[in-house]
Amino acid sequence: MKILAINTSNQPLSVAVLDNDCLLAQTTLTTHRKHAEFLMLVIEDLVQKADLKPTDLDRVVVADGPGSYTGIRMATTAAKTIASTLGIELVTVSSLLNLALNIQEKDTLINPIFDGRNQNMFTGLYRVKDGEMQNVIADQHTNLTKWLEAVSHYDQQIIILGDTDPFEAPMREALHSRLAVANPYLGIPSATLLGQYGLDKSPVSSIDAVVPRYLRLTKAEADWKKLHPNEDTHDYVEKV
Amino acid sequence: MKILAINTSNQPLSVAVLDNDCLLAQTTLTTHRKHAEFLMLVIEDLVQKADLKPTDLDRVVVADGPGSYTGIRMATTAAKTIASTLGIELVTVSSLLNLALNIQEKDTLINPIFDGRNQNMFTGLYRVKDGEMQNVIADQHTNLTKWLEAVSHYDQQIIILGDTDPFEAPMREALHSRLAVANPYLGIPSATLLGQYGLDKSPVSSIDAVVPRYLRLTKAEADWKKLHPNEDTHDYVEKV
Repeated sequence: MKILAINTSNQPLSVAVLDNDCLLAQTTLTTHRKHAEFLMLVIEDLVQKADLKPTDLDRVVVADGPGSYTGIRMATTAAKTIASTLGIELVTVSSLLNLALNIQEKDTLINPIFDGRNQNMFTGLYRVKDGEMQNVIADQHTNLTKWLEAVSHYDQQIIILGDTDPFEAPMREALHSRLAVANPYLGIPSATLLGQYGLDKSPVSSIDAVVPRYLRLTKAEADWKKLHPNEDTHDYVEKV
Repeated sequence: MKILAINTSNQPLSVAVLDNDCLLAQTTLTTHRKHAEFLMLVIEDLVQKADLKPTDLDRVVVADGPGSYTGIRMATTAAKTIASTLGIELVTVSSLLNLALNIQEKDTLINPIFDGRNQNMFTGLYRVKDGEMQNVIADQHTNLTKWLEAVSHYDQQIIILGDTDPFEAPMREALHSRLAVANPYLGIPSATLLGQYGLDKSPVSSIDAVVPRYLRLTKAEADWKKLHPNEDTHDYVEKV
């Protein structure tokens, strides 16, 4: 199975082409937030370097969020467009899980973090069990105090990775020697690991129904919800 | 410090541009042995994607062998040419060490292997100590029997990676549960890890004097040595 894997959830852009779980070609960039400018060029270049035609692809695996609004919209839109156009399968994977895949250690809890500003974070808790990355606490948009309360129920070592800078000091104060901080290099997602993970996962049943995994309301949605407290924000776009 | 890191020692090609230990841009390909065709194009493309000019580079780090004769000659020639032309530093790193950097585990011996055909191997033994990759048994071209004798003096777990297929079964027979086999993905070198490792290392004093780390004689050299048993193979090229 030929797989195209895409992660542009945050500043890094990582794209890979795989043959089953074997890397054929991967490019990772951290220098641009202008993923719009590079994503399709990088995809075309890698498919060509992998000696493939776009029609050789069997599946697209995309990290669909959480992350920057623009980044995850870009990735999901590109992935949906490619999957629809070529009539191939689409698999969506949490961007936090994609980051957690960088950690190989077995006897530790893995805590990927994206900074949500003002002591808020997008985060989740993972562990490797039976050779598979498993979710322990669901991905969420939360604040540091609530997150520390949530992880206090576990007594294993916790390794944080991603946007660790704003959280390392207060987390160390709470968790002491149980806290470990990953090498900053491991805070960059690997599209190859994303593609390998997506190889065994079920594709979505409806490509059209895929939306980015925002995990929090946009400011516009939040403002609208204040004015319409009894309505579901799923209706937001329709109502507006 | 802006670093260009290059590894084309075997089938994979990996090139990265870093700002100190931060990845700016990396491309890895496994599909071509024709590195000659791609290497300079990939380097130019990545320097540009990293928003740099070639003259912004401060250091080249190259995996100088062991590996395929063509691959390591290509990488060292490209690295020497770039370093000389730009007047910047050159650091050489063992290709086996570059592969060992993929393993993060602390309490294990790391055993990267390149297949040397007919039960021969290019290999060395490494471990992570005080956060640094350390050599335990020097890189060498040897055969499986001798290598098993060499590693039998250690009683820790040994994780093999790289060209493990021809060696896994006989090594398991000798080492039993002490043997672990890395995920095949970890058999692909990362130029980013190469660049990070080379950041703290001393550059070579003479760029011109750098030669690929072949670790065994070429067939032509071996034939010549048979005819000239008392002469040093270092004189081979001059004498021929």
